[in-house]
Amino acid sequence: MGGRLAGRRVVVTDCDELIGPEIVAVFREEGAEVLADRRDLTQPSAAAALIEEAGQVDVLVANLAAKVPGKLAHESDDAELDLMLDRLVRPLHRLTRAVLPQMMARRQGKIVVVGAGAALRGVPRRAVYAAARAAQHGYVRSVAVEVARHNIQVNATAQTFVENPTYFPPEYQATDEFRARMENVPAGRLATAREAAQFLLTLAGPESDFLVGQIFPFTGGWVH
Amino acid sequence: MGGRLAGRRVVVTDCDELIGPEIVAVFREEGAEVLADRRDLTQPSAAAALIEEAGQVDVLVANLAAKVPGKLAHESDDAELDLMLDRLVRPLHRLTRAVLPQMMARRQGKIVVVGAGAALRGVPRRAVYAAARAAQHGYVRSVAVEVARHNIQVNATAQTFVENPTYFPPEYQATDEFRARMENVPAGRLATAREAAQFLLTLAGPESDFLVGQIFPFTGGWVH
Amino acid sequence: MGGRLAGRRVVVTDCDELIGPEIVAVFREEGAEVLADRRDLTQPSAAAALIEEAGQVDVLVANLAAKVPGKLAHESDDAELDLMLDRLVRPLHRLTRAVLPQMMARRQGKIVVVGAGAALRGVPRRAVYAAARAAQHGYVRSVAVEVARHNIQVNATAQTFVENPTYFPPEYQATDEFRARMENVPAGRLATAREAAQFLLTLAGPESDFLVGQIFPFTGGWVH
Amino acid sequence: MGGRLAGRRVVVTDCDELIGPEIVAVFREEGAEVLADRRDLTQPSAAAALIEEAGQVDVLVANLAAKVPGKLAHESDDAELDLMLDRLVRPLHRLTRAVLPQMMARRQGKIVVVGAGAALRGVPRRAVYAAARAAQHGYVRSVAVEVARHNIQVNATAQTFVENPTYFPPEYQATDEFRARMENVPAGRLATAREAAQFLLTLAGPESDFLVGQIFPFTGGWVH
Repeated sequence: MGGRLAGRRVVVTDCDELIGPEIVAVFREEGAEVLADRRDLTQPSAAAALIEEAGQVDVLVANLAAKVPGKLAHESDDAELDLMLDRLVRPLHRLTRAVLPQMMARRQGKIVVVGAGAALRGVPRRAVYAAARAAQHGYVRSVAVEVARHNIQVNATAQTFVENPTYFPPEYQATDEFRARMENVPAGRLATAREAAQFLLTLAGPESDFLVGQIFPFTGGWVH
Repeated sequence: MGGRLAGRRVVVTDCDELIGPEIVAVFREEGAEVLADRRDLTQPSAAAALIEEAGQVDVLVANLAAKVPGKLAHESDDAELDLMLDRLVRPLHRLTRAVLPQMMARRQGKIVVVGAGAALRGVPRRAVYAAARAAQHGYVRSVAVEVARHNIQVNATAQTFVENPTYFPPEYQATDEFRARMENVPAGRLATAREAAQFLLTLAGPESDFLVGQIFPFTGGWVH
Repeated sequence: MGGRLAGRRVVVTDCDELIGPEIVAVFREEGAEVLADRRDLTQPSAAAALIEEAGQVDVLVANLAAKVPGKLAHESDDAELDLMLDRLVRPLHRLTRAVLPQMMARRQGKIVVVGAGAALRGVPRRAVYAAARAAQHGYVRSVAVEVARHNIQVNATAQTFVENPTYFPPEYQATDEFRARMENVPAGRLATAREAAQFLLTLAGPESDFLVGQIFPFTGGWVH
Repeated sequence: MGGRLAGRRVVVTDCDELIGPEIVAVFREEGAEVLADRRDLTQPSAAAALIEEAGQVDVLVANLAAKVPGKLAHESDDAELDLMLDRLVRPLHRLTRAVLPQMMARRQGKIVVVGAGAALRGVPRRAVYAAARAAQHGYVRSVAVEVARHNIQVNATAQTFVENPTYFPPEYQATDEFRARMENVPAGRLATAREAAQFLLTLAGPESDFLVGQIFPFTGGWVH
């Protein structure tokens, strides 16, 4: 309906994962030309290839997905940590590296990282996942400061409790355990994926021109 | 141009102060019916009168201004602290108290507090101001949790380095002192008041439906 | 047993309130000469009189107590907010103002504010209390930056879930409600008042020489 | 002089790096039996071997060092990120995994992570370093929540501006650039390594019994 991203060329990674489909839909509704990408970004050359194929990228939405192992820290082996780093941290560095030069040359660009609330507040059985998600935030803060003078904005969310068939299937939402968890979410409900995607517009559009390395929680009040 | 606030009735307090004029303009452009108010909210009954006169209030923008005394803490007397509390804290409580019942009755509403970065990062000669601004944030977090289940969202910004003829007059912007200060702002510039007002849309529109007591810095990277 | 505060002259305010008695005891065990004060600091001249009577103050422990009203924000009147400001914010400013000049003259001193976790995370029925507690933190951050170059350190805690006969009487600790609340405290228990007092040593002794305006949560993991 | 760690068996990793030597010295002065270890923890089996050789470990000080590459994000290749992860993140997971079972069996233990301020505030030319340091903090928060009920405390610092011949050699401290940087540190000076080591005592001794996943900045006020 709106035109908040009119004329912007946007790349969305892992477009079938997490809130990827809704990002693509919402950004298109706002006038963006969206390149929805689903290639496996754990391949070392994949990020550079994606950016090269994309041509001009005004906004890179680093939506990176990983299945949370869900194990206790001391039962979680090296491979589980490595998987998180391979899926969430290394691709972010490669994508950033690939896209920054063209953005610097144009003195214009946005990188939006779809981050996780688990990076900001401890949760049992999330240690290796939280490590990788926190790494994204640390990376964002430093890169953002580096490129701000080139008029490029790099920011991230920290979302959690967003409706998602993997983490919150309908049958789970009918359980007492789910209802007990919602007691601890001040909003008292899950966000829809569409709401989460709409929130990202703030980091992708002109409203973010003065935001440098900000991490915005989107958690229903679970993180303050 | 857009319609992000189409049909919403919005009250903006201290509408001639800080970014008040730009909030009024930007919110109207997005379709809101804005009641721009300039009454002196230090009068104990003023907030209740404002809300009563306003009728239905979908969004209350608590834009509260105070002239920063700019003294060292130990040279700042009781009256200076009291002035900050009178202008920034007491009116916020009175406005909130006045507007919440109608929002609860409708199970819908937003309170947006235009806060200050000085609440989050220490600056010399700001102690009593920072105290009052931090009080706003503490208040926001608790009220937000309280009313989230009524489908009312209460959130705040923490803005600083926003263009403003009082704090950053053109002649000051030409000084070396100003340029030295900008060195410490990763964005390397001031935000325009219009940018700051646009950022507030995120806390006033549907994008904020899942935000509960969030404090969003808008500081050019000065606060992370 | 130790001598972490050997030879230090310490003032502890509201010495009968909150963890006051344990601060006095623990600081004396560490060799401090403690002036335990119980005067009513809501009297405008009380803070200055206290510091004058105290003579040299190496460490000021601003332990300020207020009975939490426990009302919903919209049911809490002006008087309840004022009471919080009168007990928690104004005395802090007066004490700071009174003690800083002597500390500056000696180029040495510490101000330790016993703050509250409610300032950092929203809790229902705490709005006016949270506002005043957050004001303390904002004040601390700015004063700290101001006086750091005088070799004076100003820091605060944000404590909560500390054993206290007022908030957590034994009969309450036997209830299911209490046990349910403990489920949300990662530590799974209350801290003892003695533990909270020992934690303050870190902000009062030489370990704090490099800490400037830091707010340290002491909440059993409730705030991250 | 004191006995804050009397009878405690402590492992300090990378004992020749960063503030390792001072940790060993200060902790011994406080009565700890310190195993100062210098093995290369990038070897996958090294962490487990260290813990096995150590026997009972009451306190693990994860002091992990990595030479900061100091490159711009887009000039920093995969190998540079991997080196940071290899030195700062993987060993932390392996050490934690190796030591937790014995701590759980005894229902007692502390893990203290010597972290970096760069994880919390963006700095140019630190992106891959900041990512790895932030990963440590995210990991700490989640593991801490997981093991708190076993009476094990896991916490971290975020230190920066600590005297260190690698980052701040005497000749650099004589430069204008160094003096300009100190202008941005409210404390106006570097901390000594000994001060930083003393600060760690708070996370290693009984004062930390109620701290769960806390990240304590030690930055001279650079991070609030």
